[in-house]
Amino acid sequence: MGAVVEWKIGDVWTQKEPFYLPVGEEIQLFEAAAAGRLPVMLKGPTGCGKTRFLEYMAYRLRRPLVTVACHEDLTTADLVGRYLLKGEETVWVDGPLTTAVKRGAICYLDEVVEARKDTIVVIHPLTDDRRFLPLEKKGEVIKAPDTFMLVISYNPGYQTILKDLKQSTKQRFVALEFDFPPADYETEIVRREAGINSDVAAKLVKVAGKMRTLKNRGLEEGVSTRLVIYAATLVKHGIEMLEAIKTAMIKPITDDQVIQKSLEEIAATLLAEG
Amino acid sequence: MGAVVEWKIGDVWTQKEPFYLPVGEEIQLFEAAAAGRLPVMLKGPTGCGKTRFLEYMAYRLRRPLVTVACHEDLTTADLVGRYLLKGEETVWVDGPLTTAVKRGAICYLDEVVEARKDTIVVIHPLTDDRRFLPLEKKGEVIKAPDTFMLVISYNPGYQTILKDLKQSTKQRFVALEFDFPPADYETEIVRREAGINSDVAAKLVKVAGKMRTLKNRGLEEGVSTRLVIYAATLVKHGIEMLEAIKTAMIKPITDDQVIQKSLEEIAATLLAEG
Amino acid sequence: MGAVVEWKIGDVWTQKEPFYLPVGEEIQLFEAAAAGRLPVMLKGPTGCGKTRFLEYMAYRLRRPLVTVACHEDLTTADLVGRYLLKGEETVWVDGPLTTAVKRGAICYLDEVVEARKDTIVVIHPLTDDRRFLPLEKKGEVIKAPDTFMLVISYNPGYQTILKDLKQSTKQRFVALEFDFPPADYETEIVRREAGINSDVAAKLVKVAGKMRTLKNRGLEEGVSTRLVIYAATLVKHGIEMLEAIKTAMIKPITDDQVIQKSLEEIAATLLAEG
Amino acid sequence: MGAVVEWKIGDVWTQKEPFYLPVGEEIQLFEAAAAGRLPVMLKGPTGCGKTRFLEYMAYRLRRPLVTVACHEDLTTADLVGRYLLKGEETVWVDGPLTTAVKRGAICYLDEVVEARKDTIVVIHPLTDDRRFLPLEKKGEVIKAPDTFMLVISYNPGYQTILKDLKQSTKQRFVALEFDFPPADYETEIVRREAGINSDVAAKLVKVAGKMRTLKNRGLEEGVSTRLVIYAATLVKHGIEMLEAIKTAMIKPITDDQVIQKSLEEIAATLLAEG
Amino acid sequence: MGAVVEWKIGDVWTQKEPFYLPVGEEIQLFEAAAAGRLPVMLKGPTGCGKTRFLEYMAYRLRRPLVTVACHEDLTTADLVGRYLLKGEETVWVDGPLTTAVKRGAICYLDEVVEARKDTIVVIHPLTDDRRFLPLEKKGEVIKAPDTFMLVISYNPGYQTILKDLKQSTKQRFVALEFDFPPADYETEIVRREAGINSDVAAKLVKVAGKMRTLKNRGLEEGVSTRLVIYAATLVKHGIEMLEAIKTAMIKPITDDQVIQKSLEEIAATLLAEG
Amino acid sequence: MGAVVEWKIGDVWTQKEPFYLPVGEEIQLFEAAAAGRLPVMLKGPTGCGKTRFLEYMAYRLRRPLVTVACHEDLTTADLVGRYLLKGEETVWVDGPLTTAVKRGAICYLDEVVEARKDTIVVIHPLTDDRRFLPLEKKGEVIKAPDTFMLVISYNPGYQTILKDLKQSTKQRFVALEFDFPPADYETEIVRREAGINSDVAAKLVKVAGKMRTLKNRGLEEGVSTRLVIYAATLVKHGIEMLEAIKTAMIKPITDDQVIQKSLEEIAATLLAEG
Repeated sequence: MGAVVEWKIGDVWTQKEPFYLPVGEEIQLFEAAAAGRLPVMLKGPTGCGKTRFLEYMAYRLRRPLVTVACHEDLTTADLVGRYLLKGEETVWVDGPLTTAVKRGAICYLDEVVEARKDTIVVIHPLTDDRRFLPLEKKGEVIKAPDTFMLVISYNPGYQTILKDLKQSTKQRFVALEFDFPPADYETEIVRREAGINSDVAAKLVKVAGKMRTLKNRGLEEGVSTRLVIYAATLVKHGIEMLEAIKTAMIKPITDDQVIQKSLEEIAATLLAEG
Repeated sequence: MGAVVEWKIGDVWTQKEPFYLPVGEEIQLFEAAAAGRLPVMLKGPTGCGKTRFLEYMAYRLRRPLVTVACHEDLTTADLVGRYLLKGEETVWVDGPLTTAVKRGAICYLDEVVEARKDTIVVIHPLTDDRRFLPLEKKGEVIKAPDTFMLVISYNPGYQTILKDLKQSTKQRFVALEFDFPPADYETEIVRREAGINSDVAAKLVKVAGKMRTLKNRGLEEGVSTRLVIYAATLVKHGIEMLEAIKTAMIKPITDDQVIQKSLEEIAATLLAEG
Repeated sequence: MGAVVEWKIGDVWTQKEPFYLPVGEEIQLFEAAAAGRLPVMLKGPTGCGKTRFLEYMAYRLRRPLVTVACHEDLTTADLVGRYLLKGEETVWVDGPLTTAVKRGAICYLDEVVEARKDTIVVIHPLTDDRRFLPLEKKGEVIKAPDTFMLVISYNPGYQTILKDLKQSTKQRFVALEFDFPPADYETEIVRREAGINSDVAAKLVKVAGKMRTLKNRGLEEGVSTRLVIYAATLVKHGIEMLEAIKTAMIKPITDDQVIQKSLEEIAATLLAEG
Repeated sequence: MGAVVEWKIGDVWTQKEPFYLPVGEEIQLFEAAAAGRLPVMLKGPTGCGKTRFLEYMAYRLRRPLVTVACHEDLTTADLVGRYLLKGEETVWVDGPLTTAVKRGAICYLDEVVEARKDTIVVIHPLTDDRRFLPLEKKGEVIKAPDTFMLVISYNPGYQTILKDLKQSTKQRFVALEFDFPPADYETEIVRREAGINSDVAAKLVKVAGKMRTLKNRGLEEGVSTRLVIYAATLVKHGIEMLEAIKTAMIKPITDDQVIQKSLEEIAATLLAEG
Repeated sequence: MGAVVEWKIGDVWTQKEPFYLPVGEEIQLFEAAAAGRLPVMLKGPTGCGKTRFLEYMAYRLRRPLVTVACHEDLTTADLVGRYLLKGEETVWVDGPLTTAVKRGAICYLDEVVEARKDTIVVIHPLTDDRRFLPLEKKGEVIKAPDTFMLVISYNPGYQTILKDLKQSTKQRFVALEFDFPPADYETEIVRREAGINSDVAAKLVKVAGKMRTLKNRGLEEGVSTRLVIYAATLVKHGIEMLEAIKTAMIKPITDDQVIQKSLEEIAATLLAEG
Repeated sequence: MGAVVEWKIGDVWTQKEPFYLPVGEEIQLFEAAAAGRLPVMLKGPTGCGKTRFLEYMAYRLRRPLVTVACHEDLTTADLVGRYLLKGEETVWVDGPLTTAVKRGAICYLDEVVEARKDTIVVIHPLTDDRRFLPLEKKGEVIKAPDTFMLVISYNPGYQTILKDLKQSTKQRFVALEFDFPPADYETEIVRREAGINSDVAAKLVKVAGKMRTLKNRGLEEGVSTRLVIYAATLVKHGIEMLEAIKTAMIKPITDDQVIQKSLEEIAATLLAEG
């Protein structure tokens, strides 16, 4: 199969290679899982690069990528498809999961734990050795081609007893764990994405790194690489560095005025150190 | 793009420049975010001017503004669109978010935290570098033009553990923080909006300022600039000042008779000093 | 605009001036709010005359009055309108709020706090200086004429943390506070409404007044003027006074046998004093 | 209006006078309420004769009677009416409340507190001096004729904080209180209804009376007159008295084996006393 | 009316007399209730023969039997009937309760407490002396013929405060109480139903009897006669006795390994005793 | 009936004999249950081979197999069938349970406890001696042929008080209990399924065995055979053993970093031992 250049349901595909800096064995492990037709779970915090990694792997494996952002009201029908009334007839319309199975694509269920239980259970037969998708409403079963691959994301920091995947679901995936990239990698990413010089990027990454050590001491979650890129973008458009950090890296993640203040002081000190 | 003079879904657009008095760097920061195509979160208490600021920025940037007041029952379909039965056919009707994306408008989701989770998740792909809106029901994806901008409002005073934005949503926005304007600014605003003289406006603003210091000591939230303008409007239509303050600035915000009494005394004293 | 003599959605309009005895400044304040196009909140206990006051003001201002009794299942569509299937077509049918906006009427949302959150939020754009009503389902916006006025009622005795208006809603209204009328006023009201002599009316009002002092000491809420009129009506149709008080003023408001007994004794004593 | 001999929605009407033995002033009070066009609330425990009283009054006043058994899922549409698809048209079908208003009937909402809040609120305009029923879906208002009367039943023993009528609803009714009839009255009722001799009836009533004194000491509610009639019916069809009491008056009201045993012993002792 | 030989909604009817061994007065009591047109409640644990008793009584009384297994989502419409779209028309389709009323059948609502409240309330008018079924959606009322009989089942062991019948429902039924049959009766039942010899049946019944004494000491409910028949069936198909008891009488009713073990030892000991 | 070679609703059927290694008496017990027409409950932890056992038995008994993965939103209609609009007609479409009954297939309801209560109750008449399926919506009853067999799965480790089968459901099944296979059996299974040599398989099984002993000491559930096969698959595609264990056997089942670490050390030690 050659490069796929069309737009697909739930995602955008381009011919350009997505930028991704590998940190560990994640590429080899993903390729082994793809070769062995194993479903994959991407574990890690918000905004650490899970989605980008998957875009990169889809490009590398030359497979279409279908992304579905899961949420509480996502139903099986939203994933699998439904009958719609067209004029005087009812017509079946495939959902993104069915489309992905038919095309042998990678189907990415982002934050799958948010979905309703029925949505999660519908993927079970796709994740054991039978690898088929039952379309119960149509009374049909479709077999997944070898290139079809199911990937889910999962943020361990969010899970509660009430909202967690069941073991009978978890035990259907191999798991790749992600974290924020090392400082030099992250600097390179911020430099490229925001289009600023390395020096500014390095300073922002240094501030972000310091802030992440405060997680669980007042901050619910570490500042994401995405927010560092936002700060860099503001700097590029003429905003001064400390102001950019406050606007993009501090105020979005906490409402607590005292914590905001102390984060600003940490940032000011680090920027002064140079 | 020239000035937009039409009425739009969910909001009103006029050729007249909305009146807005800037307090800090908010205009520069918003313009940098617009230039860098970053989503923006407006944080601040009720009635401190967030909506007015946005109307002003939309006018200044010459972009259409689509406002959606979010609430508990707002569904993805309300935002994105749905199929409707027209005569014998089903016809797709764009929702306000889809309209805003197609026109490259500013889409303002007011009090977004009130919306259902699925509504909040549907904006995720619009807030990362992919900037597209999936229309899952249609099996389509639309790419946002550069002028499209997503803005949400968020009142930190309201959030509870049960009803808060997820970090994976928060970390997709740069945040501008708003508070009630300084006394002289607010006096000017009240004078203009209610059409009364500066002296009356200044007295009402002085009373409002004093009342706001009582927040968390019996008052759930400070009195908004809007209510000060209401009081001024009553005065303009012949109501005496203390009566106007009671009717527009005290009784709407608290049911507690004791607190009402003591606020009235504070107001009477300040007016007497006047 | 002349007198409106038609029947309207959700309410009844007559050419006859409704009987209303003003107690304080409420008429002047309401007229100032109407002149300044401010939304009004009527605060006060059950059955103290809020609805009657509004009928009187509507007559006085010569504006149509549209009343909506709010409840838990009232949806935005119930207020704003919906598409209905008529034969082979879907036809839009305006709801009472839309009708009121189009006609420049007073729209009265009785016990608005009972409505669902979406219903409450839909009135926001009508209550700030934009004064428009978005018909999201139609993709239309209608601007309210100057005579349109939004009035809500609110009973402070009922509110709980779970069921209260948000500050961002409360701070959109000026508030008029109502209580049971003074004894001589209430006697006159009961005399007129039930068609009995002043003496009987005065005695019943005296009993009611005494009972109201017991609120919060066993009685959830004071006996309403309506129930006093009911008692007077029973007397007029041949029921003896104490029996009428028991049937119309005591048994409807409490199930507690001990409290019922002691209220009967209080009533018997007051009637004996008579 | 003459005797009504047709079958009506939600109830059965016959030409025969229903059997009712008055206990207190209830007939005079009901007639005064009917004359004064006041809504009536019947308060009292399960099976003490509220429904029968109302059938009797309807016959006595020569008004049709429409009964609705309320429950948790009863909607406004169930009461008021709805549009139904008939062939290619939608046709409005009146609900029982609308039918009752149009015919000037007595509308009886049995156990109204069970209904959803919207159902309860819809009766408000019928219960004040406006006396009209808004058909919101049709955009119509119908005025109740003088003979229309609204009656609700209410069992004080059941109400909890979560499920009670609001004061703003309660204060719209005069209240008649019912209890189990005195022993000689109840004996006469049981004799007539079950068709047995007075001696058997008297014994069963004596046992029931004793059991009712045990309410709140293990028994949730006293045994109803209906169950006494059931026991008498079993006796009439050949079952021995103690067995009939166990089957009809003890086992239906409690699952507790110990309480069942002691009730049987009480019954055996009383029967032996003769 | 002769023997009914057709298949009916919700149940199966045969010409063969169902096998039932009476334990007490239940047949006489049921016949008296049928003669007196009284509704009947069958109380007792799972699988003790309530359904079989009713099949026997239906055969004996020569009345059709309509059985409805109640559950949380059973609606009034499921019981009473609904309009269905057939081609271009809407056609009313009777539910099982309506069918039973029309045919003068016995209608059996199995585990009625599981049904939604509206379903339970709909039977009220059928259970007092009016004996009619309101079809509210059709605006019709149907009167039950004398042979119509309503029977419900009720398992006292299951009821909780949240899920119990209201007294106003309970007090509409005479109650027959069931328990597991005496050992010799149960042996005969097992022998007949599974087609094995009396010796095997007696041993299994002995084990079951011992296990039932352990109820509330670790076992939620006693082992049903049905499971004893299952064990006998396994023995008949070549499984050894202890294995059959483990598979059919122990593992289905408890997940606790310790309790399973001790039950197995009890069974082994009793079998060894012979 | 010969071998069934078609694809069936909800499952895949092939002519090839599924690979299954029996551990105890499960095959004999299942055959006795099939001969005696008894419903079967398969009890056991996630991924221990229950589904595979059933595929094997279906092949062995030469009966079609219809599998339904149950979930919270599975309705009776999903199981039994529903009316669908086709062109201008409504057409009944059988659900998987109805299909299974009609064909005399084995119907497997996987994790039945997840289904809604109505779904569970609908199988009751199929699991007693009546063996019929009521199609209430059609007003039809279909009798199950002798080869029809109902099988459910049930994981005792998951059940909570809120989510458990009722005794009246449990007592309708004989129960077969499953656990992870003995080491030599599991090694053979892993070798075959992943296509690796016995030595690697044995090592992975040894690690899995050790990990399972840690259940309830930090691990919610033991690692399934499926995950061991996943690890073996990664090894086959070039991933080193410890990395494969971490990715497939450790990270999917726990988010706790400390437990992950100690499991890795256990695995490293066992692999070093050889």
